[in-house]
Amino acid sequence: MSVYTNVTAAELTAWLANYSLGRLIACEPIKAGIENSNYFVTTTQGRYVLTLFERLPAEELPFYLDLMAHLARHGIPCPAPIADLSDRYLRELNGKPAALVTRLPGKSIERPGAAECGELGMLLGRMHLAARSYAAYLDLPRGPKWWRVAAQDVKPFMAKEQHELLESELAFQARQRFPDLPRGPVHGDLFRDNALFDDGRISAVFDFYFAGVDCLLYDVAVSVNDWCLADPAGDGRLDAARVQALLGGYHAQRPFNALERAAWPVMLRTAALRFWLSRLHDLHLPRAGMLVHAHDPEHFRRILALRVAGSEAAHGVPWLA
Amino acid sequence: MSVYTNVTAAELTAWLANYSLGRLIACEPIKAGIENSNYFVTTTQGRYVLTLFERLPAEELPFYLDLMAHLARHGIPCPAPIADLSDRYLRELNGKPAALVTRLPGKSIERPGAAECGELGMLLGRMHLAARSYAAYLDLPRGPKWWRVAAQDVKPFMAKEQHELLESELAFQARQRFPDLPRGPVHGDLFRDNALFDDGRISAVFDFYFAGVDCLLYDVAVSVNDWCLADPAGDGRLDAARVQALLGGYHAQRPFNALERAAWPVMLRTAALRFWLSRLHDLHLPRAGMLVHAHDPEHFRRILALRVAGSEAAHGVPWLA
Repeated sequence: MSVYTNVTAAELTAWLANYSLGRLIACEPIKAGIENSNYFVTTTQGRYVLTLFERLPAEELPFYLDLMAHLARHGIPCPAPIADLSDRYLRELNGKPAALVTRLPGKSIERPGAAECGELGMLLGRMHLAARSYAAYLDLPRGPKWWRVAAQDVKPFMAKEQHELLESELAFQARQRFPDLPRGPVHGDLFRDNALFDDGRISAVFDFYFAGVDCLLYDVAVSVNDWCLADPAGDGRLDAARVQALLGGYHAQRPFNALERAAWPVMLRTAALRFWLSRLHDLHLPRAGMLVHAHDPEHFRRILALRVAGSEAAHGVPWLA
Repeated sequence: MSVYTNVTAAELTAWLANYSLGRLIACEPIKAGIENSNYFVTTTQGRYVLTLFERLPAEELPFYLDLMAHLARHGIPCPAPIADLSDRYLRELNGKPAALVTRLPGKSIERPGAAECGELGMLLGRMHLAARSYAAYLDLPRGPKWWRVAAQDVKPFMAKEQHELLESELAFQARQRFPDLPRGPVHGDLFRDNALFDDGRISAVFDFYFAGVDCLLYDVAVSVNDWCLADPAGDGRLDAARVQALLGGYHAQRPFNALERAAWPVMLRTAALRFWLSRLHDLHLPRAGMLVHAHDPEHFRRILALRVAGSEAAHGVPWLA
């Protein structure tokens, strides 16, 4: 499990006196998640998630929390940070910066169909529109600068053939320039396990701690590479019906412009590269004290190799062809 | 019914394009409420209340909406205003300032027992604590200045005996000075019909359009005069068990200080006077186009007369005696 910092009921009860959330009823560690310590917290007022930030730089935390607050008040179903009696979202708890956010209902879906992909596409589009009035700035933490450092770090652990794919893709990506793609705050990690569904509708998107400002199109590519696989445990091939549904849902909220349509096949590769690299890095160079098994990087190597082959880029979407 | 400004589905669909709330599913006028036009609005994202402000000065609206947003992000179950794509809570709709807020679940309770009164007391206490970090200022709209004007307006319509009670109470209240009572934003109108319960807990407090900055104690007195009656349709006598529960719940969150304990019997009279006067005013001098029958002022005359008699002030609450 991945709770790095323990919080007792007595400690939490005392800490909750800084909030107007009533009395503590229950507190339960959350085992998922690899970056922070998380607890489900129930008070007489409601249900919350408590996060103790174990790794993120303290100066970056307001970007994430204020973004969630911004999106929540625009009607996006994301966790809303709770302000304390001094009107701040962040307090210290057991030596760590900590925040409480609302806990949203619903269940994640391991094998989304076209309908769920369509819902996700609509949500992404609405989220990107709502986020455009968010003023704060943070570079996407796993962008091109990080790729180059990470590629050096993982090189000693890679087979020759894999390393050649990595090097050639880095060289390819370095030649791509998209200075005019629409940009804004993006989630950056909206995989299936970061969304909940309730009665067929998305009831929550969460885990904004990889968010930053980047091309909106990149966010769409990250989600397509995870939500629209023909077989989530398979070779990484996309399912045309799911891609059509996700992109169709997105398009209904915010249509791709001509530059985005042109950049789409490259962006699918960009998104695959980023996660291949981060999984390689987590596997071969785990941080000290990291308590969770790393995901298999091989999954994203296969996805990257397929996207490089590129036969699927238009997915039968008429406005992409 | 009290919808003054009609909104068609086509008008609302077009207007909702300014928000990131998905597609309109349903829109239904709300018949309760006398000050504004209200609609229940359902979109593919969720359930909202649309309010078109018919009477309130436009410059005061941000105070109310920002207060609701402030309380909501402190965990108080009040409607949260939804920001539009330009990041504003207020837009014009059919010539009126209009806002969308979240619609909360639950049902109002006509005859609350001691348990519900205790819940309300806790919520009031938590709301007052959460509101203290709210920086904006607005005088309570129905304060002493308004009393004097309203008393002049309604005088011609009152029987001599009633007018004597009104004049003597105004004179009594004018002699009371509480400059050092704790002050802050107060709801000002937290009657039973402005709260919803769900599974024994308060799931919503709403209608903040009489809110302003005043003595916190006044807010408690307004609620006690409505929630804690032995018989809501009766002579206005308080039920000791309900008063004890409400004040006990409040006390657990924010104990009265010595000044507040001393001022309590007067504050019950203040709260009764304010609503007697506003009901007299609504009955005898209705605003042009007002569509709802006024409440009977007699109810609050009886309450005021009983509070003036004053036999119930301590209600068996040990720390008040």
